[in-house]
Amino acid sequence: MSSAATSPAGPDHLWSVDEHLEDILSTVRPLEPIELQLLDAQGCVLVDDVTVPVSLPPFDNSSMDGYAVRVADVAGAGEEFPAVLEVVGDVAAGAADPVRVGPGQAARIMTGAPLPPGAEAVVPVEWTDGGLGEGPVSGMRARSLAPEGAEGQVRVHRPAETGAHVRARGSDVRAGALALEAGTILGPPQIALLAAIGRGRVRVRPRPRVVVLSTGSELVQPGEELTTGQIYDSNSFALTAAAREAGAIAYRVGAVADDADILRTTIEDQLVRADLLVTTGGVSVGAYDVVKEALSDVGDEDVAGAGVDFRKLAMQPGKPQGFGSIGPDHTPLLALPGNPVSSYVSFELFVRPAIRALMGLPDVHRPRVRAVLKSDEALRSPKGRRQFLRGSCTEGEVSPVGGAGSHLIAALAHADALIVVPEDVESVEPGTEVEVVLLG
Amino acid sequence: MSSAATSPAGPDHLWSVDEHLEDILSTVRPLEPIELQLLDAQGCVLVDDVTVPVSLPPFDNSSMDGYAVRVADVAGAGEEFPAVLEVVGDVAAGAADPVRVGPGQAARIMTGAPLPPGAEAVVPVEWTDGGLGEGPVSGMRARSLAPEGAEGQVRVHRPAETGAHVRARGSDVRAGALALEAGTILGPPQIALLAAIGRGRVRVRPRPRVVVLSTGSELVQPGEELTTGQIYDSNSFALTAAAREAGAIAYRVGAVADDADILRTTIEDQLVRADLLVTTGGVSVGAYDVVKEALSDVGDEDVAGAGVDFRKLAMQPGKPQGFGSIGPDHTPLLALPGNPVSSYVSFELFVRPAIRALMGLPDVHRPRVRAVLKSDEALRSPKGRRQFLRGSCTEGEVSPVGGAGSHLIAALAHADALIVVPEDVESVEPGTEVEVVLLG
Repeated sequence: MSSAATSPAGPDHLWSVDEHLEDILSTVRPLEPIELQLLDAQGCVLVDDVTVPVSLPPFDNSSMDGYAVRVADVAGAGEEFPAVLEVVGDVAAGAADPVRVGPGQAARIMTGAPLPPGAEAVVPVEWTDGGLGEGPVSGMRARSLAPEGAEGQVRVHRPAETGAHVRARGSDVRAGALALEAGTILGPPQIALLAAIGRGRVRVRPRPRVVVLSTGSELVQPGEELTTGQIYDSNSFALTAAAREAGAIAYRVGAVADDADILRTTIEDQLVRADLLVTTGGVSVGAYDVVKEALSDVGDEDVAGAGVDFRKLAMQPGKPQGFGSIGPDHTPLLALPGNPVSSYVSFELFVRPAIRALMGLPDVHRPRVRAVLKSDEALRSPKGRRQFLRGSCTEGEVSPVGGAGSHLIAALAHADALIVVPEDVESVEPGTEVEVVLLG
Repeated sequence: MSSAATSPAGPDHLWSVDEHLEDILSTVRPLEPIELQLLDAQGCVLVDDVTVPVSLPPFDNSSMDGYAVRVADVAGAGEEFPAVLEVVGDVAAGAADPVRVGPGQAARIMTGAPLPPGAEAVVPVEWTDGGLGEGPVSGMRARSLAPEGAEGQVRVHRPAETGAHVRARGSDVRAGALALEAGTILGPPQIALLAAIGRGRVRVRPRPRVVVLSTGSELVQPGEELTTGQIYDSNSFALTAAAREAGAIAYRVGAVADDADILRTTIEDQLVRADLLVTTGGVSVGAYDVVKEALSDVGDEDVAGAGVDFRKLAMQPGKPQGFGSIGPDHTPLLALPGNPVSSYVSFELFVRPAIRALMGLPDVHRPRVRAVLKSDEALRSPKGRRQFLRGSCTEGEVSPVGGAGSHLIAALAHADALIVVPEDVESVEPGTEVEVVLLG
């Protein structure tokens, strides 16, 4: 892993959103594949092409409950002049050694059961008298209640062509065919196919383990009592939930006090279970910005790409950001600002793509659309910074929700989109078309 | 819970897809609410309105790293004639008892720290000399490295109005305001807000526990060896994955042999962990259809609505279906047909809405759109049955994937939509607009 731990552009360079994102995505590599039980691989990306080892279905089998017959025996059959056949037994699904059907004979057969030797077609039970000697029946009686159904005579009321109601071996997929391509995301239907061809385990890129910790001596765990100067820790909850939603296995460490030594120790302890570390707070220009203090010098100078770079982005909210890698495995770390809205917006723009890149997903970004701004007044945006305003988007229109303040967490909870105001735009009039990131 | 365990329309009634779905949705009720830890409630529906117990932010605090000042002291300040103030100490975030700022004084203050008594505004550190006696600085030095920054003098280069760079108490949300309405689905931003107002636990409708079992003596666990007449069990894998995707906690029991007593015992054993039971196979007209055999008479005749009703639907695939409730708690049970594509389509149409109804979600259905059929030939559909064909849908066009056969599981894995052909349509020409269920 390489990282721009030392900004080539120098410490005063104002990074664009795109430059920062590109730095992250050019550094974060998909995780090494592992073999997982099929159901544990749900939502993951397949690493290898999977070919079909055995044709599906693996043998000719009945698609109906009925009677396996020889075509000649039922030729010309009708309700008035039925073909009368001797029932030689049942063929249930899973039958390993089905009875043989000779001339003038039929075997009662169940859906999915192998077509017995000698038989060429299946007539559905509804086309017969079901062995009762009367008119057409609507079904069979349970074998356990009426064992005599597997013997005696059956009257068949309609003819059948060769292969009728038979699912031929290999008619679904043939051995050697490509079942799923490398890169396929495994949803329920793909899991169905893998199971059907006998794959109990599968090689995929695993879900990344993301460790989330917030920093700040003012932070209190929700549910506890607030005292003067304190607020509740919301970032570690929000980002843990967001990391899970993005596909990660997320661990919430919770709030760490503003003490560089404690923070460094905590992060070192967490490295063992982290494919990605996310911190919030402590990245700005204050005298107690411990994330910056603790991580600015962790890089081994002899190792290219180690270390965390703190930088300013031409962005609102979310100006101060840190990115780099730490520890012996060069675990990537994103240090987000501490304001709840700043950290959430930063997560959406930078952490979510990183998580999805670790998973090897082809599409790491949220969908973006164009929508018409619906607002009582023009939106103001600082020149030279790309602004992300919370909005609510429906049917081609987007309305701002709450203001631009980065602490307006209540508004965030009622937004479903981010309105993007480009760097060179200072004012957006109502009715203008804008770019919108859909969060839903 | 009530159920149509005895079809009012009689055993020969052919149910429409809508009648069957309505029977399910009028029977399945949202689960009783429980109180969960905040992160365990992700994706669940809030049961009560949540009001704000304490205003956010709970106290006036700084939105910048800088200096807390009295407005009169910095009036008219400029770079040439800075206001020179005595630094009386630091106010860090979390400070319980900040220093007092008197006339001619300033306190160095960090983002999120309480505005100290006496101060009326904050000037960002970039508008000052940072106490170094030279030009404007870009930030503070870490307290741990330069403790002298909390004392001495600071030169302020710009004036500030009352309240500048101060986030006022209650400016985000006020105590007593409605934070989130009952019925809100808890995603990351809603979890952020609940944490921010101090809620460590929240009352929601829990995720339903869904037990999935497949039936069939022909079924073998993927990864094991197939012998004659056997196939791999794919349904229990596919539906467990699909139940999870729908929001459930899903338990895969795996394949049960075609033996009514074993099946009945297995289901009774599973009831303790089931809010919903889903079976596949054994619901048709064969002599070994054990789900039908085992469950047709489980209803206590003295209890209204107990028991499972097996019925035929005017639908392809998925004609045979069972629905009802079993056990002392009247646990709902959906018995799906055994063909992999039939069971998957049945899951999408009937089980997924049931799971989402149990969660109390407002929208239980997959989105549906209209799309233009792109196909080399007309689609054929049996009269009187609503057909659901696998398709691939992009940009207003839908193409069929694979054929109509209910065993074409390979095609299902490459579909992302179901093409709906209504009961009264027997042929759909290419270029016709059709209804499409999006599975994505």
